[in-house]
Amino acid sequence: MGDVPEVHLIVRVDLGPHGRLGPGKMLLLDNIQQLGSISAAGRAMNMSYRQAWDLVDQLNRAFTEPVVASQTGGKSGGGASLTDFGRQLLAHYRHIAAETQRAAASDMAAIMGKLRPAEEAEAGK
Amino acid sequence: MGDVPEVHLIVRVDLGPHGRLGPGKMLLLDNIQQLGSISAAGRAMNMSYRQAWDLVDQLNRAFTEPVVASQTGGKSGGGASLTDFGRQLLAHYRHIAAETQRAAASDMAAIMGKLRPAEEAEAGK
Repeated sequence: MGDVPEVHLIVRVDLGPHGRLGPGKMLLLDNIQQLGSISAAGRAMNMSYRQAWDLVDQLNRAFTEPVVASQTGGKSGGGASLTDFGRQLLAHYRHIAAETQRAAASDMAAIMGKLRPAEEAEAGK
Repeated sequence: MGDVPEVHLIVRVDLGPHGRLGPGKMLLLDNIQQLGSISAAGRAMNMSYRQAWDLVDQLNRAFTEPVVASQTGGKSGGGASLTDFGRQLLAHYRHIAAETQRAAASDMAAIMGKLRPAEEAEAGK
């Protein structure tokens, strides 16, 4: 008998024409807050600077206030930090993630209890 | 002033090696229940029979009980229906979707209130 794999809930906020807010963009914002740079934040997620910058640009265009403030140029490629609104957005997303996890707990447990162990599924392929 | 686009929460259950349960697979199950066939259910979502069948197969392998029971062959390609467990799974997913929407409501409203109207975002591109 193998262990039943961990099951968890992934939440995304659909912003319509502005794309979606999910775990990836939120981790990028968290990394920008920790590391002070978009390129370092992207590298920490194996993301190119271009990819990371595109995601930041998408977020900055989605709202009436910017999420990330960046200074381009300079020897190190410029620093970046979350705006006050960016920190609020990250806090709202984290609150949504925690509250939904709690709200879904009993249904998640019911689903998890019926999951087939991983190696049994592999063997059945 | 344009309308602020509708914002909503998308939830997926991460089943580890078995993939994910999200709105697409759940709509497919709902369609199978309504239409009594995997091919008709897939067509209703602009999905090929092969795609629909692969998703059903993934679900059937993920749990200790099958989710969809199908009869292959015959003139119409065979019928399909949800098992008792399939109906339970769909009900759990719907309950998760409803409860998480409720749990996230106040944070969602805060995020939605800061969203830029769509045409303003287009014009800014």
